[in-house]
Amino acid sequence: MCTAATYKTKDFYFGRTLDYEFSYGDEITVTPRNYPFEFRYMGRMDSHYAMIGMAHVAGDYPLYYDAINEKGLGMAGLNFVGNAAYQEADESEDRDNVAQYEFIPWILGSCASVGEARVALDRMTLTGTPFSEQLPTAQLHWIIADRNGAITVECMADGLHVYENPVGVLTNNPPFPQQMFLLNQYMGLSPKQPVNTFAPEVGLSAYSRGMGAIGLPGDLSSTSRFARVAFVKQNSLPADSEAESVSQFFHILGSVDQQRGCCEVAPDKYEITIYTSCCNADKGIYYYNTYEGHQINAVDMNREDLDGAELARYPLIQGENINWQN
Amino acid sequence: MCTAATYKTKDFYFGRTLDYEFSYGDEITVTPRNYPFEFRYMGRMDSHYAMIGMAHVAGDYPLYYDAINEKGLGMAGLNFVGNAAYQEADESEDRDNVAQYEFIPWILGSCASVGEARVALDRMTLTGTPFSEQLPTAQLHWIIADRNGAITVECMADGLHVYENPVGVLTNNPPFPQQMFLLNQYMGLSPKQPVNTFAPEVGLSAYSRGMGAIGLPGDLSSTSRFARVAFVKQNSLPADSEAESVSQFFHILGSVDQQRGCCEVAPDKYEITIYTSCCNADKGIYYYNTYEGHQINAVDMNREDLDGAELARYPLIQGENINWQN
Amino acid sequence: MCTAATYKTKDFYFGRTLDYEFSYGDEITVTPRNYPFEFRYMGRMDSHYAMIGMAHVAGDYPLYYDAINEKGLGMAGLNFVGNAAYQEADESEDRDNVAQYEFIPWILGSCASVGEARVALDRMTLTGTPFSEQLPTAQLHWIIADRNGAITVECMADGLHVYENPVGVLTNNPPFPQQMFLLNQYMGLSPKQPVNTFAPEVGLSAYSRGMGAIGLPGDLSSTSRFARVAFVKQNSLPADSEAESVSQFFHILGSVDQQRGCCEVAPDKYEITIYTSCCNADKGIYYYNTYEGHQINAVDMNREDLDGAELARYPLIQGENINWQN
Amino acid sequence: MCTAATYKTKDFYFGRTLDYEFSYGDEITVTPRNYPFEFRYMGRMDSHYAMIGMAHVAGDYPLYYDAINEKGLGMAGLNFVGNAAYQEADESEDRDNVAQYEFIPWILGSCASVGEARVALDRMTLTGTPFSEQLPTAQLHWIIADRNGAITVECMADGLHVYENPVGVLTNNPPFPQQMFLLNQYMGLSPKQPVNTFAPEVGLSAYSRGMGAIGLPGDLSSTSRFARVAFVKQNSLPADSEAESVSQFFHILGSVDQQRGCCEVAPDKYEITIYTSCCNADKGIYYYNTYEGHQINAVDMNREDLDGAELARYPLIQGENINWQN
Repeated sequence: MCTAATYKTKDFYFGRTLDYEFSYGDEITVTPRNYPFEFRYMGRMDSHYAMIGMAHVAGDYPLYYDAINEKGLGMAGLNFVGNAAYQEADESEDRDNVAQYEFIPWILGSCASVGEARVALDRMTLTGTPFSEQLPTAQLHWIIADRNGAITVECMADGLHVYENPVGVLTNNPPFPQQMFLLNQYMGLSPKQPVNTFAPEVGLSAYSRGMGAIGLPGDLSSTSRFARVAFVKQNSLPADSEAESVSQFFHILGSVDQQRGCCEVAPDKYEITIYTSCCNADKGIYYYNTYEGHQINAVDMNREDLDGAELARYPLIQGENINWQN
Repeated sequence: MCTAATYKTKDFYFGRTLDYEFSYGDEITVTPRNYPFEFRYMGRMDSHYAMIGMAHVAGDYPLYYDAINEKGLGMAGLNFVGNAAYQEADESEDRDNVAQYEFIPWILGSCASVGEARVALDRMTLTGTPFSEQLPTAQLHWIIADRNGAITVECMADGLHVYENPVGVLTNNPPFPQQMFLLNQYMGLSPKQPVNTFAPEVGLSAYSRGMGAIGLPGDLSSTSRFARVAFVKQNSLPADSEAESVSQFFHILGSVDQQRGCCEVAPDKYEITIYTSCCNADKGIYYYNTYEGHQINAVDMNREDLDGAELARYPLIQGENINWQN
Repeated sequence: MCTAATYKTKDFYFGRTLDYEFSYGDEITVTPRNYPFEFRYMGRMDSHYAMIGMAHVAGDYPLYYDAINEKGLGMAGLNFVGNAAYQEADESEDRDNVAQYEFIPWILGSCASVGEARVALDRMTLTGTPFSEQLPTAQLHWIIADRNGAITVECMADGLHVYENPVGVLTNNPPFPQQMFLLNQYMGLSPKQPVNTFAPEVGLSAYSRGMGAIGLPGDLSSTSRFARVAFVKQNSLPADSEAESVSQFFHILGSVDQQRGCCEVAPDKYEITIYTSCCNADKGIYYYNTYEGHQINAVDMNREDLDGAELARYPLIQGENINWQN
Repeated sequence: MCTAATYKTKDFYFGRTLDYEFSYGDEITVTPRNYPFEFRYMGRMDSHYAMIGMAHVAGDYPLYYDAINEKGLGMAGLNFVGNAAYQEADESEDRDNVAQYEFIPWILGSCASVGEARVALDRMTLTGTPFSEQLPTAQLHWIIADRNGAITVECMADGLHVYENPVGVLTNNPPFPQQMFLLNQYMGLSPKQPVNTFAPEVGLSAYSRGMGAIGLPGDLSSTSRFARVAFVKQNSLPADSEAESVSQFFHILGSVDQQRGCCEVAPDKYEITIYTSCCNADKGIYYYNTYEGHQINAVDMNREDLDGAELARYPLIQGENINWQN
């Protein structure tokens, strides 16, 4: 399915993997401040924060999977199949009705921080209105994060939940509180070597480096990816430079890479990590690579006319760009 | 520590990760056919198969970590600390005494296949003679592979063992038969979704894709890396093109990537995956990337003068080469 | 902590372990039909179903840990520390206010089945009123079961929850829906030998019987005990006779036995399985054994005057009663 | 299959489970000092140490599964299928040829300690000679123990191995050194609660007692039983009295009890723990219980005429002996 993570060094980084068995056709898309967003219930938003992210652009409308805005706020939607349940539009005057496909623009367009997003969420009703007949509503949940923290948003049959996300990661099912609960199972794991507490008077030995995390799960289920990426993220060393930080971020999400052949979703159909992204939320740069393109590509939103009204779109680069040394 | 793997599509691929907390200074090194190898006990080999691999070059001598030769035979040495024990030189006429640091050139210089390597091993004594005072003998074991199979070579206190390696992977401790035995623990894991055999009349459900491999270990110990890379390698789909094959190979070894911070080897010292290599053993191309350089680099031995007598050396490219799209 | 289970052969069996580091002093206690129960809010119940179970009798009041009634309904309270939260008494006319310590008599005194218990629960408010200053309110949740099914009752900050319990087992934290969710992690486990789906073309082998359940947890945490006892219970063969059924029941709960020394709760304080019980709910027999008394003891409620008004109390037999054969 | 363990409090205890899908018909059998043992190659032993243990008696010959002698030495044979390989009789004068079925009498008849057993093993050849056509040779390995230590004896294709057994437990495959190696995987487990080293700044919590041993396997395979029983044995508290010690011993082996239905060995055939034994090796008492007989039974060898020449045999008590309290 998918995994999202945050990472803070000198700058704040936010990104995700998108894991699936096919692609809708995605583009790195910059939405400048004056691109007019037509909201289904809320009318037109003529001016808003600029944002950059990965989107399927349908008829000039950016259906974002994940994005950051110029204020350093990031947001990503991840599959939440079987648990997501959207709300009916609420006609009360003090409610903001937002269709699920508008959720990322709605928040990133108007909120400069997680705190502001929390305020917006308080008055928001999230409807299941589809973008079009061809693009039915996806069952998603979201992570919203800035350099000071992260929240998880889950709209379920019993309402819209907003959870503090202290680890800064998100995968898929089950609901977030259960994912967090499951981390307790691994609380004794460590990057350090284990001490023999099993039978101290018997001569057990650490025959390999890295044994302190034995028990960390290695499969591709959503619970196992949650635990693994949380462990790697929480134990990642702070990096100094931009290059080191970006590199480390790709290693963090690399820990939950879905390899072709290891996750069968139907006979002879396999899910893979289609792309992995890493946004520098402070600098407005969208880094990413693809399953068959290990090199990191980048689009810098600040090289676009952020006061414009037109989307800037860059195709996803596929295929290995090999650097030949001879 | 390290992980090696083989992979066969249309061509045969062979590579490894080198995981450590520092580097000796490594170069992609082509040894042409007429580079004179001075062996400690076996005299001078003036002519041999050409080879390409990663080496620390000490005084014009290529100390290979891993390499392939022009015949499609690959070989890599991996840490085997606590178990490796080398032999005394054997003066019998029919024995070939080879110092541990000469082992890769000795085999790749003269053997065109795993079968020929087996014959050479039969008459070989592997000594612990160090290359120099500054470069003491490493405790290693080896994988030797061609497109038809692989073997593991372990020199221990009870002699030199040559094992058939049916999975085509190698990590570190324990000895190879025990690593293979441990795979039995995971024999029921699968890329397919599990069926409820726990309690068929109770409604359990697969809440996520990828649950068929729950139980696969996710830590960085040598036994867990062995199981994980074996699972990913064995279930990797065959790829058609060179680019797809190379890409998949890096995903296979990416499953055992060591992230900075997750494997502490001494207070504030951490092991990372310094480089990952992937040789196309049929075409003589050495692909690799580095911890802070996700792009895949390549050196093609056939672009060198393979009849020459001089090493061709290429520095390891470090640092992210970002492809800016705007 | 504790584990409860149900088991159905020709008769219906219901029992539990009580795991703790000390005992309050417990007795197998039969409450006959005319023992007057004085309820804190609900007045006096002069006549009710007879019941038998393990209780701490405080001033002639049976504080039951677990019991069955003469109609074949069983009920047990298990620790639920950190999650249990009781309600304020509700003065509405149609509400039944029941103190936590009265919950078992209230249900078993008046309900002949799980269905009737569900009806009673619908109008019930569960208060935290303590029995006395010396015996403060325990944080518990409950399993209620008859031969046709089982439910779990959890009173938490967000209200009283009644869950269908399809596996017929209960341990402790976390809340029941999460315990059930966690069983999904083990859905592929089986009493049968595994088939090699890890790497079918590599010769893996089942080196031991019993490998189909590798992955089942073996520690004493509440989640691991839940999974283990559910597996053993669900895969237990139906037994023919009373002796076989009772024996098998003790084997089911024996799978989560807490051994002295394996669960430290404070320096040099260890939790153990103080007693294990097994009620034949059809015949009204309370079987049990203790940590240091492996023999199974029994009290048959039908050998008491069930129309009486006095408790019949039998001390818990401690110490091994060895059967010397010579 | 089977599990054996040792346990030392004031006295020394030695016992085992016998796990199988059927029984040959077993009896607690005392062999007094002057029972004449006819050895296949070694002639007649007219006088020897007395011993008590569980045996299938075939034509007045005690085929022991496990026994102790009057000197406090214990020995048990456990299945070792696929690895056991016996030797050819060796005609050299200084060799003792012992048939596999004679091994327990040979050692217990003449050795007063593990040290003496080691000396006897040095000159011993273990042959696969069957007892009779009806009773072919079993594939076994052995544990031999006294209050000062234990050894494991494994006769394999490469010879007879005698291993120090520092944990005092034995199950089945794989060979003992691999079983011991596998304990390293669990070295960080503990009866104490875990400390959060996974992500110290994130609020993880121990939601249950007993979480320090999460990762301990709970299935019935021989490797999982080895780890589990080793953990329970090594962490068992020393007990003061005979009753407490015996009780604790049954709890130790109870941790690897095989429940009917959980280990299918053929369609609708299930292995169970047929009996569990516990010998007080200092006092010469054989305690045991059976799958359907939880009460502990005992036979005291010192109540027999140990200077006699006739076997004393006691049938295995089956069926629950319920202690009715009313």
